[in-house]
Amino acid sequence: MNSTSAPDPESAKVAVACCQIAPRVGQSDHNIGLCCDAIRTAAAQGARVIVLPELAQSGYVFNDAQEARSVAQTADGTALTAWAALAHELGVVVVAGFCELAQSGELHNSAALIDASGVRAVYRKAHLWDREKEIFTPGSAPPPVVNTAYGRIGMVICYDLEFPEWTRLAALQGAELLCVPTNWPRGAPAPAHERPGEVVRVQACASTNRMLVAACCRVGHERGVDWVGGSCIADADGYLVAGPLDGESVATIVAEINPADARNKWISQRNHVLQDRRPALYSGLAQPDN
Amino acid sequence: MNSTSAPDPESAKVAVACCQIAPRVGQSDHNIGLCCDAIRTAAAQGARVIVLPELAQSGYVFNDAQEARSVAQTADGTALTAWAALAHELGVVVVAGFCELAQSGELHNSAALIDASGVRAVYRKAHLWDREKEIFTPGSAPPPVVNTAYGRIGMVICYDLEFPEWTRLAALQGAELLCVPTNWPRGAPAPAHERPGEVVRVQACASTNRMLVAACCRVGHERGVDWVGGSCIADADGYLVAGPLDGESVATIVAEINPADARNKWISQRNHVLQDRRPALYSGLAQPDN
Repeated sequence: MNSTSAPDPESAKVAVACCQIAPRVGQSDHNIGLCCDAIRTAAAQGARVIVLPELAQSGYVFNDAQEARSVAQTADGTALTAWAALAHELGVVVVAGFCELAQSGELHNSAALIDASGVRAVYRKAHLWDREKEIFTPGSAPPPVVNTAYGRIGMVICYDLEFPEWTRLAALQGAELLCVPTNWPRGAPAPAHERPGEVVRVQACASTNRMLVAACCRVGHERGVDWVGGSCIADADGYLVAGPLDGESVATIVAEINPADARNKWISQRNHVLQDRRPALYSGLAQPDN
Repeated sequence: MNSTSAPDPESAKVAVACCQIAPRVGQSDHNIGLCCDAIRTAAAQGARVIVLPELAQSGYVFNDAQEARSVAQTADGTALTAWAALAHELGVVVVAGFCELAQSGELHNSAALIDASGVRAVYRKAHLWDREKEIFTPGSAPPPVVNTAYGRIGMVICYDLEFPEWTRLAALQGAELLCVPTNWPRGAPAPAHERPGEVVRVQACASTNRMLVAACCRVGHERGVDWVGGSCIADADGYLVAGPLDGESVATIVAEINPADARNKWISQRNHVLQDRRPALYSGLAQPDN
């Protein structure tokens, strides 16, 4: 195994990559290979943490649940097996989306966090977008946060990011880097001189939590759908250190980030972004009548 | 009274203004007049909802609690009385910050929502910034949301906005327009080509809640402190329709907004930004151990 040893916990920088690729719906073997190529390319550029899009293994625009089921895989299927072998070989962390067939028989829009030791966590998207509601069962487990050789890494998927409640839970669990596989469908264009709202929300997620965020979108016209692209990496102040990419480019962005930045939650002598929360006043957020 | 009648609830646009002024610390009478001038200027430009900065009545950089106490006012003091008279005369809604002396004797960093009928709500900042912690008692009431002739208007103050939990509570209470008096102290400058993080967080607050947001900062060097400025108004998609101003300009921005945009929480055929929340999964946000 070529894995580098664990970095100095206080100061080591880590190169993080987002691989904005163009999967093809339903072509699982093709897409798994595409992901492997992207992982090798990113690792060759020095990346130690490599983020791929949502449903990178399966493509996104399914005609129906039956089609999704036909390409769904369990967590020990060919996709995660191939990516785990590569993570082991290269000594990297991979976060990538796949169409998951659960033991229960249900389908989930999932992402795996894989390191040199294998699959460390599988996360099932909790906030489903549009027709996903007809195909997938939403997850009910919080975003996992995993200790890796390159820092504590959390995962959410695409529309999850629009619920600051959800990303806050990852931060409260100590996520230093939040990896966000996405497939942001392109809607109305942003006004001139405006970044896409998706990117703005990445930035705000990063700064309100002082958490590094790497969001990886896809490209490639698929059954009438185009994509924002917008893959980007934000620092703990919410400023972009890589990206945003456009919605046409197959490209890999790499940025050096420092997980220690995310462990320092102080933003003034007296202000800590998590300790300043007033949880006793937030019970309304958890009330179903809302 | 010159108040216009209530607009058509479904479609009427409302002109909202943020008046970025330069109060002077400790000079309450001066500042109250400055606010009155700003309110008249904004109303003359057609504004029906007028937002002024945090602690507009008192200035911000107090030497100590004693100095703050020396200019603090009750909700029936000269500031709110003057602004209420003007709101009545002009038929406008005013949201402005003041240094509040409570019945209890405690000091609060507060904002008032005033309309033609008088003071409708006083809100006490719940998340205190830096040395405010040595001067003010934090509020423990949620952001108020008030039905006005120009839509349902909520209030939070400055650092409150960095807690998406807090602004979400306003949205859940039906706020269509969130008014945010601020005094954003200028820290490290944003990198080139980046909007200040404060503005980014305004935008994300708007889009994740589909809530219009008007944030009004101040300018004017005060005891070694300068300000971001950055006063801005965001639409329900989180894009700016006015501002951001810079940190030097005394200026008024005005934008036409449509509260009906904020009543429509649908962002796809199947996605509603509030109904898609998973409150049963959010209990961790309200746990004090976090």
